[in-house]
Amino acid sequence: MEGRNLLRYTFLLFFTLLLLLFTLSNLPSLPSNKAALLDCAAYSPWCTSKNRIQSKKPDSLHNPTRRRRHSADVPRHPLDPLTVTELNKVQSIIKKYDLFKNTAYALHSVVLEEPEKKVVLGWKKGDALPPRKAAVVARAGGASHVLTVDLGSGEVTRHEESRTSGYPTMTLEEMTSVTWAPLASADFNRTVVDRGVDLADLACLPISTGWFGKSEEKRRLIKVQCYSTKDTANFYMRPIEGLTVLVDLDTKQVVEITDQGKNIPIPNAANTDYRFSAQNSYQRLINPISIEQPKGPSFTIEDDHLVKWANWEFHLKPDPRAGVVVSQVRAVDPGTGEMRDVMYKGLTSELFVPYMDPTDAWYFKTYMDAGEYGFGLQAMPLDPLNDCPRNAYYMDGVFAAGDGTPYVRSDMVCVFESYGGDIGWRHSESPITGMEIREVRPKVTLVVRMAASVANYDYIVDWEFQTDGLIRIKVGLSGILMVKGTPYSNMDQINTQETLYGTLLSENVIGVIHDHYITFYLDMEIDGSDNSFVKVNLEREYTSPGESPRMSYLKAVREVAKTEKDAQIKLKLYDPSEFHVINPAKKTRVGNPVGYKVVPGGTAASLIDVNDPPQKRGAFTNNQIWVTPYNDTEQWAGGLFVYQSHGEDTLQEWSNRDREIENKDIVVWYTLGFHHIPCQEDFPIMPTVSSSFDLKPVNFFERNPILKIPPNFENDLPICKADSAAA
Amino acid sequence: MEGRNLLRYTFLLFFTLLLLLFTLSNLPSLPSNKAALLDCAAYSPWCTSKNRIQSKKPDSLHNPTRRRRHSADVPRHPLDPLTVTELNKVQSIIKKYDLFKNTAYALHSVVLEEPEKKVVLGWKKGDALPPRKAAVVARAGGASHVLTVDLGSGEVTRHEESRTSGYPTMTLEEMTSVTWAPLASADFNRTVVDRGVDLADLACLPISTGWFGKSEEKRRLIKVQCYSTKDTANFYMRPIEGLTVLVDLDTKQVVEITDQGKNIPIPNAANTDYRFSAQNSYQRLINPISIEQPKGPSFTIEDDHLVKWANWEFHLKPDPRAGVVVSQVRAVDPGTGEMRDVMYKGLTSELFVPYMDPTDAWYFKTYMDAGEYGFGLQAMPLDPLNDCPRNAYYMDGVFAAGDGTPYVRSDMVCVFESYGGDIGWRHSESPITGMEIREVRPKVTLVVRMAASVANYDYIVDWEFQTDGLIRIKVGLSGILMVKGTPYSNMDQINTQETLYGTLLSENVIGVIHDHYITFYLDMEIDGSDNSFVKVNLEREYTSPGESPRMSYLKAVREVAKTEKDAQIKLKLYDPSEFHVINPAKKTRVGNPVGYKVVPGGTAASLIDVNDPPQKRGAFTNNQIWVTPYNDTEQWAGGLFVYQSHGEDTLQEWSNRDREIENKDIVVWYTLGFHHIPCQEDFPIMPTVSSSFDLKPVNFFERNPILKIPPNFENDLPICKADSAAA
Repeated sequence: MEGRNLLRYTFLLFFTLLLLLFTLSNLPSLPSNKAALLDCAAYSPWCTSKNRIQSKKPDSLHNPTRRRRHSADVPRHPLDPLTVTELNKVQSIIKKYDLFKNTAYALHSVVLEEPEKKVVLGWKKGDALPPRKAAVVARAGGASHVLTVDLGSGEVTRHEESRTSGYPTMTLEEMTSVTWAPLASADFNRTVVDRGVDLADLACLPISTGWFGKSEEKRRLIKVQCYSTKDTANFYMRPIEGLTVLVDLDTKQVVEITDQGKNIPIPNAANTDYRFSAQNSYQRLINPISIEQPKGPSFTIEDDHLVKWANWEFHLKPDPRAGVVVSQVRAVDPGTGEMRDVMYKGLTSELFVPYMDPTDAWYFKTYMDAGEYGFGLQAMPLDPLNDCPRNAYYMDGVFAAGDGTPYVRSDMVCVFESYGGDIGWRHSESPITGMEIREVRPKVTLVVRMAASVANYDYIVDWEFQTDGLIRIKVGLSGILMVKGTPYSNMDQINTQETLYGTLLSENVIGVIHDHYITFYLDMEIDGSDNSFVKVNLEREYTSPGESPRMSYLKAVREVAKTEKDAQIKLKLYDPSEFHVINPAKKTRVGNPVGYKVVPGGTAASLIDVNDPPQKRGAFTNNQIWVTPYNDTEQWAGGLFVYQSHGEDTLQEWSNRDREIENKDIVVWYTLGFHHIPCQEDFPIMPTVSSSFDLKPVNFFERNPILKIPPNFENDLPICKADSAAA
Repeated sequence: MEGRNLLRYTFLLFFTLLLLLFTLSNLPSLPSNKAALLDCAAYSPWCTSKNRIQSKKPDSLHNPTRRRRHSADVPRHPLDPLTVTELNKVQSIIKKYDLFKNTAYALHSVVLEEPEKKVVLGWKKGDALPPRKAAVVARAGGASHVLTVDLGSGEVTRHEESRTSGYPTMTLEEMTSVTWAPLASADFNRTVVDRGVDLADLACLPISTGWFGKSEEKRRLIKVQCYSTKDTANFYMRPIEGLTVLVDLDTKQVVEITDQGKNIPIPNAANTDYRFSAQNSYQRLINPISIEQPKGPSFTIEDDHLVKWANWEFHLKPDPRAGVVVSQVRAVDPGTGEMRDVMYKGLTSELFVPYMDPTDAWYFKTYMDAGEYGFGLQAMPLDPLNDCPRNAYYMDGVFAAGDGTPYVRSDMVCVFESYGGDIGWRHSESPITGMEIREVRPKVTLVVRMAASVANYDYIVDWEFQTDGLIRIKVGLSGILMVKGTPYSNMDQINTQETLYGTLLSENVIGVIHDHYITFYLDMEIDGSDNSFVKVNLEREYTSPGESPRMSYLKAVREVAKTEKDAQIKLKLYDPSEFHVINPAKKTRVGNPVGYKVVPGGTAASLIDVNDPPQKRGAFTNNQIWVTPYNDTEQWAGGLFVYQSHGEDTLQEWSNRDREIENKDIVVWYTLGFHHIPCQEDFPIMPTVSSSFDLKPVNFFERNPILKIPPNFENDLPICKADSAAA
């Protein structure tokens, strides 16, 4: 036995070294050549090519494979993200800053510090740009620091040490390197091998610990759980159940190993690989179909970031935390031709994804994907023709690595026009009148899309603009379930009293019940900054005796929210309201206040007890709608430092201050919610499930703004033939 | 004054005669030539051409202008609608039937009497058709009759006189002819002229009276309200407010005139005409865009009614009351290749559209569009390229006029494949794992569409089939508001205590608040007829002290509905459930019952008091979901005879019998609800507002059914150029 153990340990050591070598060689934190960072091909893990045949190169104007040279980028708008040159400058300023001179440090976030709103609103094309500044979040000496770097003067002009409970968003380097930390533990390696998993087949995930009390305090911790990649790319379906390694995120030291699921087999790999290249046969159920635009797309992108389409104009940029930020959204008034403000800024503020299994290996899975992992950091290059249709425009993200080095996330966001056969408006005269009228207009929209792959899950976020003034914000959930191993292979083995915490999806695989909450920050700007929030309550009204043959009807009663607590909205099905953001100082010709309304959708609400630690941290989901006065420190609904936070810096806490919000610069927050009880159709990959909410004009325009748009005529449409190279 | 009055009356008489002449010449009830009825061009009021230039003729296989010769149609499937030949035969049998020999009569409905379900389920292609029968609803001698006509024997094999309170769906001839009845009243004509409206400019609408008590009993009544068509095709924006004419629908006699709004001006016509041809300028905001399929559509339509697409197959037919009926919906199991039953029959059962204004000219507006007006009767020919994209297939309706003569409603339903850039499923590996995986599949669906124009409103009903097994049922609301005249031209004229019952949309125009409820009949057939309805309740569960750092989590608790009252579902936001229809006798490999779930959407609920007469008639909206045991007399949620019914034959009454529904042949009912507080953007035409609900497989398939479908490759897509004839 001794000799055998020795052999095993030698074997393990060899593999561990091999894996460490592999890891180091792939770590994005160790770039040897700065120029290479800008080159996608040299940076493959973050910039994948499609793992299937591309028969020929796309050649359109919107060619996604045309790599942009970002080294020469210059900012042209006050909200433009930091360029490569600017990021390099920040890196060198930080490097020389006293705090960091003689200590190890990591930059967890380097983004533009946006100028004050009034400066941006006052700026117009041709003006000099306001001073360019970077907002930097850094870890050094066991503390989190927030700095402002002035790019003009080359100085750090602000420096605060965080005193709140949480930690910054992890760096990508931490997320990747920590997954190898368990291999330093012989106990870990032994139990993995004992379960029949070759260490070479190991894939591990960094799972944020959340915060549940003392045990998570005063150190940055992470839990690592592992899977077998043997015989499938879909290792998520092959959990090594019950094995959880607690790691110190600063030192990468293993703190504790919990090893509880030794009786649980690793589920079989058969039929789990989802890659097209791994299918031994395929079904061509549907003939090719494409959105075609004979005269090309109708949108333009000015100065890299200003999107103009139909009656819309907005600034668009990728962001490492939010994913996508749309700013200065404005619509043309069809009556006056004037550009009118609708929203100053919109973004995905936070995601909260609590799993519903209180057992040891699962209770802590209460993810905050934006603040913990970086929703933008996880957004991978989009797949042309499949993620976005032909004629899409692709925008790259330029972000900073943990040491401040800029890198390019190519094709991170796409912009395209969508037409799926829907109808914008129509009217036929009916047989009753018999008039020969049949007027129909197809519905074409502009979509801004990104897709974040936060490990197993894929979140597709769409900002969709309609010509009638409506903005739809849609989130699609796809990707792969986070599953749990189980000894069971059939429901008939299970005692009816037993709780699975989910659904048996396949032999030894349980899809665990979970929720998704995606909270959006919507800094509305209805014809100016000072707006009010009005609940229009639909109330049942009774008629007086003899007044009418009707007993009852619905009446709309307007109620202006004076303070934040008036605008802590729990939706009610049987006591419904509309939610208007109006400009009380501006009225339509016939005297209605101009406004936009929030039209709820995806209304699932968190049912976790409000005093449960995860819900305290995710308290921003306690209401579906909130309204706060604008405050530039209140952008991230779970707090700036959300990792392991105790929940003392959430939207709930801000809103409880009950500040005045009437006729003020206000921010609306909306949370899209999903309950997910998995089913077998979610195995081994999930068809997309979507929900959306709308921002819809309500007496914003004097009248229907799309009446003058013509219908489709036959000769507007293209003449098409199949590609001669087609199979 | 005497002379002037005489002149006026002569004038009126002249106009009245002229209008009557015009009416008679346009009445669909008076066809002089049967063959002409089958020819669209000769039958223009029901078969319009587009009122704009068509530059060239479409020439594809799916050419909507290729008129089908329906005179030679033969039935090929037990559920195929009655053909022209069959309708002619029914007409001649009815004509000779004793009851109708010596009396005036009208046929209010002539449709196929579907064979018993088990006969249909047992039938397969190649078998002889089961006996063909017609279900006829007729009015004669002041009574409503239900008859079965056996087309084989030429006999009336069933004849019942209705003893319930309501009346049949109006015939189109009644709806059109009754609008001219008020002109027989000199009082009516005088007040119209006194309000400044030329009688030649009059357009009137037949408005179902509803039922509010004694005054509506024992006679068929209708209310007629009128508009000025002067200077606009959009006469709906020019109400002659307060003028309501009560007409006897059997005799066409004016019963009563209420004339209350003499001080209310007719709103101005300026800028209300919505026709493209009436715009003095237009905005080409968007370049042409089209869905193109280089190899043509992927669906086929066998024997005129059997739609086959991807993994789906179903029977499709137009229906004068429901609009569209889908039957025998089956999906291919990707594992076994077997065709599996999902739904036996789905249709729009009823619509309930109550307005929220209790005043004299408005309180009764509580429409039931299917049972009162015929949802299919109001579905007009679709507009190619705008109502449905290129490559759509168009299906005609063949219906019977009031005298039994068949006629063709051309292009009433379309079938097309939709692709708007959405994603069916995707997964990228994230930067965390760094694996080079990016798998994405575009989402292509099959849509069945019709659009009913019930006077002002246009309802777009889509049945959308997805390759992942989901069926989405979507209703879009567009068209024109029913507005109310008012003396006000600005909100500042209005006392804050005064109720408008709506929104001031333009000078003298109020958009009145109203609701829409569309109730669907869904006869589910999950792998066979005997199914159960299971509520899967999401309940908050607390952990025991010391069990977990988590206090709480969600638990799914299954609850099988035993009887109908267990399945009277009022949705709850904070006590949510999933709603499964399962086959308790069939399990997946790992032991889950196979099923589909109803995924709610459009959840607005009626807030009218349950004892208010309209709500008693619309009691089928008291819950969002109901489940009843299959009963072939229970298909129309408001009752077979819904016109002026007292509400004694509704889904609520049936369900209150509390029959057993566990492991039975069950029918699920779902109601899509909308509250509509109009806004200025709804003037003078409404951009489409949509809601939908889903039928979604839940452990129906062993696993994700779409894994083997390939992504789009560049050379799959077409090569297109602009039409050389393009402007």
